[in-house]
Amino acid sequence: MILHGYWRSSASYRVRIALAMKGVKVKQVAVNLRDGAQTDPAYTEKNPQGYLPMLELDDGTQLIQSLAILDYLDATFPEPSLMPSEPILRSKILAASMIIAADIHPIQNLSVLKYIRGEFDADDADVKTWAQHWILKGFNALETLAKDYNTPFLMTDRPMFFECCLIPQVYNANRFDVDMAAFPKLRAINDACLAREDFQLAIPDNQPDAP
Amino acid sequence: MILHGYWRSSASYRVRIALAMKGVKVKQVAVNLRDGAQTDPAYTEKNPQGYLPMLELDDGTQLIQSLAILDYLDATFPEPSLMPSEPILRSKILAASMIIAADIHPIQNLSVLKYIRGEFDADDADVKTWAQHWILKGFNALETLAKDYNTPFLMTDRPMFFECCLIPQVYNANRFDVDMAAFPKLRAINDACLAREDFQLAIPDNQPDAP
Repeated sequence: MILHGYWRSSASYRVRIALAMKGVKVKQVAVNLRDGAQTDPAYTEKNPQGYLPMLELDDGTQLIQSLAILDYLDATFPEPSLMPSEPILRSKILAASMIIAADIHPIQNLSVLKYIRGEFDADDADVKTWAQHWILKGFNALETLAKDYNTPFLMTDRPMFFECCLIPQVYNANRFDVDMAAFPKLRAINDACLAREDFQLAIPDNQPDAP
Repeated sequence: MILHGYWRSSASYRVRIALAMKGVKVKQVAVNLRDGAQTDPAYTEKNPQGYLPMLELDDGTQLIQSLAILDYLDATFPEPSLMPSEPILRSKILAASMIIAADIHPIQNLSVLKYIRGEFDADDADVKTWAQHWILKGFNALETLAKDYNTPFLMTDRPMFFECCLIPQVYNANRFDVDMAAFPKLRAINDACLAREDFQLAIPDNQPDAP
């Protein structure tokens, strides 16, 4: 399998964590977001959305959207599972993941930041305020939801689907100088994940295309 | 079960479709987005994110995030299923759904539009251009992905998880005067769904809180 990604892309990072947790080795191909390689026809021919990541299976099948790739990986390489089978806990973990994957990350991804810079004359400070606003809003909700669970990870005793989403989002929050003081549970989960060998394999700085 | 929603909320509409497809009856409680009822403590105490919808189970369990609610409903009321069991098709349907649920809808939801009006002085025309931009970008990707399938619905011969997301997004696109001419497959899916009794039960105009 080939993972088309970028070292700093949050969504690529989610998939790298899942692969590392499951011990699945893939070839990595870098698509340089800063150079706009994701809009190059060579890439958009395979992924018409022009976003990262894309997982190319050995038969050429192309899978896109990080959460959908996680779903595929969990069905195909079931151990360790990313999702519990109990429907309510499963729904709650997916909901927490969607707070990141739908309501935080897409609003402060590269194409949106480009739009607000180009059309609304947002400067660096405006962009940072914008990104912080959506990250803080989502993290506040997550920290409150986490209070219902006395577990080392969000709702479980080992990292699962949600943690594949959270750790890249905390990395991204740090890039935007988000003050994490108000989020003790999220910080504890982040620390516990980053202390693990599998998460270390997946961090941006350890990727072949990192500078 | 109680569905806390709003007649025009896309995400509430997704859940209404799934409930109607499965023939599951719920009590509906309106949370008036235009009045800001979603940020009222009476609501945020139950859903700290302050978004719609929320499904309250008979034992008081609160489920949020429309796609996570769909996942719960599919596990609990399996017929007709919203997702195929084959991992690749499942991943592709989820990916297409995420293009709507992550990369279109959250960027043009009410809280983001409020931000660009308030902080970037966006006027009605700017807001419309913004919303159209993200809808067109996502629909272009979906229309291209759809070309690989010669099926009456996106990738299947009956409406499933994706169609729960698409039909509310087309409704939303119409509100923002998006020209659907470039999307014949999406239009055909929309027409086929709206010809069905279950989708008709779920449309905004047929909800008790519609004016």
